[in-house]
Amino acid sequence: MGRTRQVAVGKVVFGSGKLVLLAGPCAIENEAQFRSCAQAVKTAGAHILRAGFFKLRTNPQSFQGLGSDAFRLAEQVSAETELPLVSEVIDPRHVEKMAQITNLFQVGTRNMYNYPLLRELGLSGKPVLLKRAFAATLDEWLLAAEYIQSAGNPNVILCERGIRTFENSTRNTLDLNSVAWLKANTDYPIVVDPSHGTGRAQLVAPMALAAAACGADGLMIEVHTSPTQSLSDGEQALLPAEFTSLTQQLERLLASQERSLWKI
Amino acid sequence: MGRTRQVAVGKVVFGSGKLVLLAGPCAIENEAQFRSCAQAVKTAGAHILRAGFFKLRTNPQSFQGLGSDAFRLAEQVSAETELPLVSEVIDPRHVEKMAQITNLFQVGTRNMYNYPLLRELGLSGKPVLLKRAFAATLDEWLLAAEYIQSAGNPNVILCERGIRTFENSTRNTLDLNSVAWLKANTDYPIVVDPSHGTGRAQLVAPMALAAAACGADGLMIEVHTSPTQSLSDGEQALLPAEFTSLTQQLERLLASQERSLWKI
Amino acid sequence: MGRTRQVAVGKVVFGSGKLVLLAGPCAIENEAQFRSCAQAVKTAGAHILRAGFFKLRTNPQSFQGLGSDAFRLAEQVSAETELPLVSEVIDPRHVEKMAQITNLFQVGTRNMYNYPLLRELGLSGKPVLLKRAFAATLDEWLLAAEYIQSAGNPNVILCERGIRTFENSTRNTLDLNSVAWLKANTDYPIVVDPSHGTGRAQLVAPMALAAAACGADGLMIEVHTSPTQSLSDGEQALLPAEFTSLTQQLERLLASQERSLWKI
Amino acid sequence: MGRTRQVAVGKVVFGSGKLVLLAGPCAIENEAQFRSCAQAVKTAGAHILRAGFFKLRTNPQSFQGLGSDAFRLAEQVSAETELPLVSEVIDPRHVEKMAQITNLFQVGTRNMYNYPLLRELGLSGKPVLLKRAFAATLDEWLLAAEYIQSAGNPNVILCERGIRTFENSTRNTLDLNSVAWLKANTDYPIVVDPSHGTGRAQLVAPMALAAAACGADGLMIEVHTSPTQSLSDGEQALLPAEFTSLTQQLERLLASQERSLWKI
Repeated sequence: MGRTRQVAVGKVVFGSGKLVLLAGPCAIENEAQFRSCAQAVKTAGAHILRAGFFKLRTNPQSFQGLGSDAFRLAEQVSAETELPLVSEVIDPRHVEKMAQITNLFQVGTRNMYNYPLLRELGLSGKPVLLKRAFAATLDEWLLAAEYIQSAGNPNVILCERGIRTFENSTRNTLDLNSVAWLKANTDYPIVVDPSHGTGRAQLVAPMALAAAACGADGLMIEVHTSPTQSLSDGEQALLPAEFTSLTQQLERLLASQERSLWKI
Repeated sequence: MGRTRQVAVGKVVFGSGKLVLLAGPCAIENEAQFRSCAQAVKTAGAHILRAGFFKLRTNPQSFQGLGSDAFRLAEQVSAETELPLVSEVIDPRHVEKMAQITNLFQVGTRNMYNYPLLRELGLSGKPVLLKRAFAATLDEWLLAAEYIQSAGNPNVILCERGIRTFENSTRNTLDLNSVAWLKANTDYPIVVDPSHGTGRAQLVAPMALAAAACGADGLMIEVHTSPTQSLSDGEQALLPAEFTSLTQQLERLLASQERSLWKI
Repeated sequence: MGRTRQVAVGKVVFGSGKLVLLAGPCAIENEAQFRSCAQAVKTAGAHILRAGFFKLRTNPQSFQGLGSDAFRLAEQVSAETELPLVSEVIDPRHVEKMAQITNLFQVGTRNMYNYPLLRELGLSGKPVLLKRAFAATLDEWLLAAEYIQSAGNPNVILCERGIRTFENSTRNTLDLNSVAWLKANTDYPIVVDPSHGTGRAQLVAPMALAAAACGADGLMIEVHTSPTQSLSDGEQALLPAEFTSLTQQLERLLASQERSLWKI
Repeated sequence: MGRTRQVAVGKVVFGSGKLVLLAGPCAIENEAQFRSCAQAVKTAGAHILRAGFFKLRTNPQSFQGLGSDAFRLAEQVSAETELPLVSEVIDPRHVEKMAQITNLFQVGTRNMYNYPLLRELGLSGKPVLLKRAFAATLDEWLLAAEYIQSAGNPNVILCERGIRTFENSTRNTLDLNSVAWLKANTDYPIVVDPSHGTGRAQLVAPMALAAAACGADGLMIEVHTSPTQSLSDGEQALLPAEFTSLTQQLERLLASQERSLWKI
């Protein structure tokens, strides 16, 4: 295709050639945790803050997020850090209200085929980060994006987060072939999530570097100030210091390709 | 586990030991098509009629069903044939209205992880046919059922409809291991859909017999009076005469196991 | 295709319409174990005896079989029970010598792509039971059979033994779609191995019945007089009494389809 | 684990921190083709030359390689270019003779479970490049390496070449998670084959860069002077000029990580 379409999220632009970092905890757990994580990722150089209100958990007894109770807190922390928010939306009935809080809607892996939700997001016009379903072909993923676009919203960013295979040493199999294929054959900006794509903190930095090397436009990284106390996904979260170290490695690698991290 | 829980849909009971047949076209296309298919499957011995209002199609340009425009027609045909209706529900905002028309809610493969929808169905109390997501483990499938149950609705029937593998000779890989496993380890009634599970009309009868042989409580079969003119899934639909022949083969096979087709 | 080609193994014929039972322990462990298992499966109605000399074990430290040390014993037990032997061959250098002992060469799942071995078996002319590699497409499987045939040996029987998927509740996913597809589109006799196809003794009988129902020409079943003391695969072996019960259920199911178990 | 074991192939050392390039055509087709490809990859900076004598082709009618007829030619070209040879071995009966010609035995994806072959290679003592079977777990792959080691040969290099999934846009799904995992948890040198891992020339360079970025010790790349006339795998082969450009990009990326391409 050649050129990547540009999608603006606040002052941050995806698809400019510069790499955008989306970071933060898996979910908002409480005020202290969220504020400290937000400040830490801001300091480390993140451009967009993960603000998880609603979690889709396989087990109905697992922590499901604070829901709308955390909207106010997220707004405050976003203002304090000057970081736009990316938030997962799980229900078409939430779109209108969440659109007032979040800057970038995230569609999670379990909802890529939820076409009524995608249509609602298409009508909202807000930027959408569309994660690949963990067993979706590239064709199906692009057709899901088409559901959003054909409802009038071209602001779609794709996010590779790993597919399900027979391999169990890692939580998912991060499919970077898909990144290279999409860069060559479509004009969508592509984000990679090595946290879910590996499920192991130890593997996040090497796979983040690999994603940048094959052309990703952004990286979504789970960062937590106390991963072992996290209510979800702690085993794949980086500490702030690890995230800082990763951003420095990324800066060097990108420079070797005449690219850089996003800067306004 | 031993005994299977019984779930009643109109006068039809799943889990009684007798095999229930759910049949009909993939979607309601128009009055003539739906009425002729309904009468044909009634004559051939079906117990529940497929009434597809809303189709989740991968491509946004594909036929998506007639939606609520077909509610009235479905009610009439259900009354004429005395067959209860099974209908796919795709949006939590539809549950209340559809509950007046349909006797059995179907959750399709793309919505097994749609927990807000499952919760809404749990609150409705109506029987739910929960299809397995095409890349769901048995654990995840059972936890999805738990979302419905923990909202207060124990009337859950599971439906195996094939999983996604590397094999491309068939549309999906029908996993009958799952049926045997679930019969041995849970008390849910289990339905098998060999139409989607194979994607080829030629393979529907042998796999329906196999499903019955390993203990399925019901079979969901696509039947169309003019498969080649069907707006969706024509290549996997049986003709009424083929369906009649299959019911006879099933009757003989079940008798060899001291079972039978459902009769009131 | 219509008619199935007939392949004779001693006095037993595959593809006649009658169902052939291959049974016995996973491997020959010692004289007492092998003789007692052989007599038990003979009594229960098996037609061909599993005689495992060489085991391909993933771990080099696992029990690998007694090798050629067990040839003499196998010959004696075969003569005593009047059961032909099926034995896995793992090395092209073994073909000539094993051809004097075994009546049916088995190619295991790990060797379906071992074309030098397949060529050697093609030259030998002896019947070959070709198991599907656990990630082989039907096309690849048929092309592997073609390696044997094009070397001059048409006596090929295919054996479905389960494929590898994301599902971990069972050891493999038994793909009975493949049986229905191969019966409809090729003339090979098809055997199904529900022991490896499920990996759990509890699921062997229902899946054996399902395999018979969709047209299998034979079943390969692990039977052991003391499964818990077996050196390999004990968790999937049936006790002789369970195998006897299964043969009775099979006899009834086959009768409902105007078929029967093999009888000379 | 920390340090990577070093494995020497001629004067080339794997596991030194420097990246080794193995390149050349899929198979030796004729003298002119092989010599021109060899000289081209030498000029472009390759360190080891692919010399394919025996090809395992799924279809028995496909080109199977020139076999031992090409041994003499390969020796001459190796001497002319001063490049050591890597050659696939497919039969335990070939090991002794091939050991005189080749510097590095390659075990292809179809033979990872061929334990008699692995044992023979263990006894030979020569370095072995062990490709991952396309449906092997990391555990199974490491146990296959153990078959070689436990026969007395520690000179094992692992090669990730893509796994089989449901995705069909690419020939295989290159699993770079495996590279990061193996670097963190074992001491084997790891080579990546982006040619087979993607199956498309367009994707080879980005995935080669990604592999280098996450720590690969070597890259195996198909290069052909006339890909469209290649007897096998032409659609994934790079032209010499594309390979040269890739080596330059790799040099820059490695420098950003304080690494470099192999130099004696």
